[in-house]
Amino acid sequence: MAQKPSIPRGTRDFSSTEMLRRNHIFDTIRRIFSLYGYLPIETPAMENLTTLLGKYGEEGDRLIFRILNSGNFLAEVPSQALAAADTPAVIQQISEKGLRYDLTVPFARYVVQHRDEIVFPFRRYQIQPVWRADKPQKGRYREFFQCDVDVIGSDSLLNEAELVMIIDRIFSELGINIVIKINNRKILAGIAEIAGAGERITDITVAIDKLEKIGPEGVRQELLQRGIEPEVTARLEPILNLKGSTDEKLGELRSAMAGSAAGLKGIEEMEELTGYMAMQPARATIELDLSLARGLNYYTGTIIEVKAADLPFGSICGGGRYDDLTGIFGMPGVSGVGVSFGADRIYDVMLQLSLFPEQTGSSTEVLIINFGGDELPALMKMASTLREEGIPTELFPEPVKLKKQFSYADSRRIPMVVIAGSNELAAGQATVKNMKTGEQTALPLSALPAFIREGKIS
Amino acid sequence: MAQKPSIPRGTRDFSSTEMLRRNHIFDTIRRIFSLYGYLPIETPAMENLTTLLGKYGEEGDRLIFRILNSGNFLAEVPSQALAAADTPAVIQQISEKGLRYDLTVPFARYVVQHRDEIVFPFRRYQIQPVWRADKPQKGRYREFFQCDVDVIGSDSLLNEAELVMIIDRIFSELGINIVIKINNRKILAGIAEIAGAGERITDITVAIDKLEKIGPEGVRQELLQRGIEPEVTARLEPILNLKGSTDEKLGELRSAMAGSAAGLKGIEEMEELTGYMAMQPARATIELDLSLARGLNYYTGTIIEVKAADLPFGSICGGGRYDDLTGIFGMPGVSGVGVSFGADRIYDVMLQLSLFPEQTGSSTEVLIINFGGDELPALMKMASTLREEGIPTELFPEPVKLKKQFSYADSRRIPMVVIAGSNELAAGQATVKNMKTGEQTALPLSALPAFIREGKIS
Repeated sequence: MAQKPSIPRGTRDFSSTEMLRRNHIFDTIRRIFSLYGYLPIETPAMENLTTLLGKYGEEGDRLIFRILNSGNFLAEVPSQALAAADTPAVIQQISEKGLRYDLTVPFARYVVQHRDEIVFPFRRYQIQPVWRADKPQKGRYREFFQCDVDVIGSDSLLNEAELVMIIDRIFSELGINIVIKINNRKILAGIAEIAGAGERITDITVAIDKLEKIGPEGVRQELLQRGIEPEVTARLEPILNLKGSTDEKLGELRSAMAGSAAGLKGIEEMEELTGYMAMQPARATIELDLSLARGLNYYTGTIIEVKAADLPFGSICGGGRYDDLTGIFGMPGVSGVGVSFGADRIYDVMLQLSLFPEQTGSSTEVLIINFGGDELPALMKMASTLREEGIPTELFPEPVKLKKQFSYADSRRIPMVVIAGSNELAAGQATVKNMKTGEQTALPLSALPAFIREGKIS
Repeated sequence: MAQKPSIPRGTRDFSSTEMLRRNHIFDTIRRIFSLYGYLPIETPAMENLTTLLGKYGEEGDRLIFRILNSGNFLAEVPSQALAAADTPAVIQQISEKGLRYDLTVPFARYVVQHRDEIVFPFRRYQIQPVWRADKPQKGRYREFFQCDVDVIGSDSLLNEAELVMIIDRIFSELGINIVIKINNRKILAGIAEIAGAGERITDITVAIDKLEKIGPEGVRQELLQRGIEPEVTARLEPILNLKGSTDEKLGELRSAMAGSAAGLKGIEEMEELTGYMAMQPARATIELDLSLARGLNYYTGTIIEVKAADLPFGSICGGGRYDDLTGIFGMPGVSGVGVSFGADRIYDVMLQLSLFPEQTGSSTEVLIINFGGDELPALMKMASTLREEGIPTELFPEPVKLKKQFSYADSRRIPMVVIAGSNELAAGQATVKNMKTGEQTALPLSALPAFIREGKIS
């Protein structure tokens, strides 16, 4: 085979360097999740199509990767469908499973399926890849990771406040300055209602969600195209353009919303949440953003979105409250709230801002030069001792030229190299070379672990 | 939807308890891998079928899950093939990608594709799920995890010795007593050769690999069925039945193998490896097992297999040396050696032997009772302080009845509960209840973190 092998478009290999950086992100996220009592679950990559289809809209259904049934899968397909090359008819016969499209629907399925084993309120997190047959482009992949954290079975807005604290802490530990935008779906419903178009809430939210991307004039056009009358739009605008602090905005909204029960409830929730958030002030900026809608229709209360303050990236984290996620699987009336961290975008932000620690994670700290022959038992023992002390150690596998072994240490960016020939070993000594400074230090074997750990003789 | 949702046959959800246990296994494996300088990589779940097909034999090809092309995939299929419901012809037209079947072939593809970026010898590990359209049965799943560790680009048998040390250390840390069986493919080739059937090495190894499962008579029958003449079998048997220590077996083999260059080379390699292993004696029992073959044809040197000593399980880890894994992708002459840990079987062994720590991993350590109202700011501050100290903490999200909050702590097996009402908080005090003993301790708020960490007042 002369051609270099490749991987499918929109998928990626992760090298060791990328993996160590990614693990730095995932480990931070995981550690903070568990500090707040969230526990991991995992669901299979494949779900039954009955679970997946109809949950993400028509476009979503088209983007689900489907898995071919095994065996002679055409045998069961009606011959007319085949003869007519009727793709939609045939597809139903030859495929029963698909790759998960997000972590939310599998989570809802999980909760319903395991309802009898779960202790509510159920706090879970889930970090797994998802797959979408989207057109690949820069920053958009067909396989990417989601990190979802949700609590289900509790109406309390304390949960929202804790999620904001979790977001604040994670991005602070990663070194990313953020702005957390908050809104409430009920306030959006109220705004639509007092503008005289309560039943058009979906069209309205989809349009105003684009404010940042397409500007006020773009939103006006989009609303018009969606059949929202210009006078409705005119009534929406002053509300969406409210300025001032969160308290000021809420005050003005309250008088504007006098006629909308939903709107008033939304304001009440936002005030309660603001109160909780004030009890443990976040490091990040938190803003009430009335144009924040997030497309997903299952949100019913608080909506949360996070952006990097120092880069014009899109959202790097977002979520909200849903009152009936499990209803689609026959378990109505269970409220939950959650957010999803976009690992790939967070990675890109950190790379652009040079936020990764130089030595991310568990790289080799020391290479022992292999002189072969009689020294080998002593060198193997040295390697063992260092590893027992928790120091990642390599003994070069072949007694090749020193130059080659040093060049390996260099390319792998191993910070220290131990040189111990037969004379030194006989004297109970070794020499450590610091690969960054070039400095060489001779020291007794017993001092080796401490020296390597601290980079100096203690 | 009245029917409870379900997942595809042969796949699994992992609950928090299962995840914490699995992570205990994966974290141990990862930590030891990195102590030996192995670094993580990951490859995509989907590979091009050109990468996967033809690498696992005909049966393997059938077991690969194929992904349907997107869009109107039938449009391109020749109408005769459709009209004839010709599955093999149609499948090639409607599917270009498949789910990975193991981690070895994607690793070989990775090495060839990224050869210019890789520093050799390349030590990598990879822990990811694989998928096989096998018939599901007890202990056999359609989605399961492999943990592979390989070094590629080094011929040295020191690598084999280090892998044995890694195996020894991992299972020792997990608390599993093991037997490590070792053989060498060249010795097997030598045995076949001196029995007068060198060219039948594959049939012979496949048959003798089953010795443990079907016994000597079964192997005799299997060899006969595979067309190996009875006199060859008669010449094989005394060698396979050699008794004694590794040194004794190697001594007897050496004289029996005088006529086989491959066999003598295998004995030499085994002696060299035995020498290395003697330099850092393993805790586990290591045995030369001449019937150990492992079905996979790509092994060319050392073969390794691990079994649990205390349970009649199959192999829980295994691997070997391959001289030409990347040859299939156009990069010949690169030797490697690696082993794969069977996470699911290790999990089952540990469960049966009750080897999991009671509190595996990062469960919540303390629940703070929520009294609502005016106490909330102080309780949120308490939760924050405990989390800053690294203690996984929950504040119950609703101020419901004490009984309900305690019953939650109980079901979740949270070991401690903090009760601090307004009077106690005003006095700077809190009470901690140990949920196991029922003991209650009143103490100053400042002593809380140390008490929860150590379970006592210091």
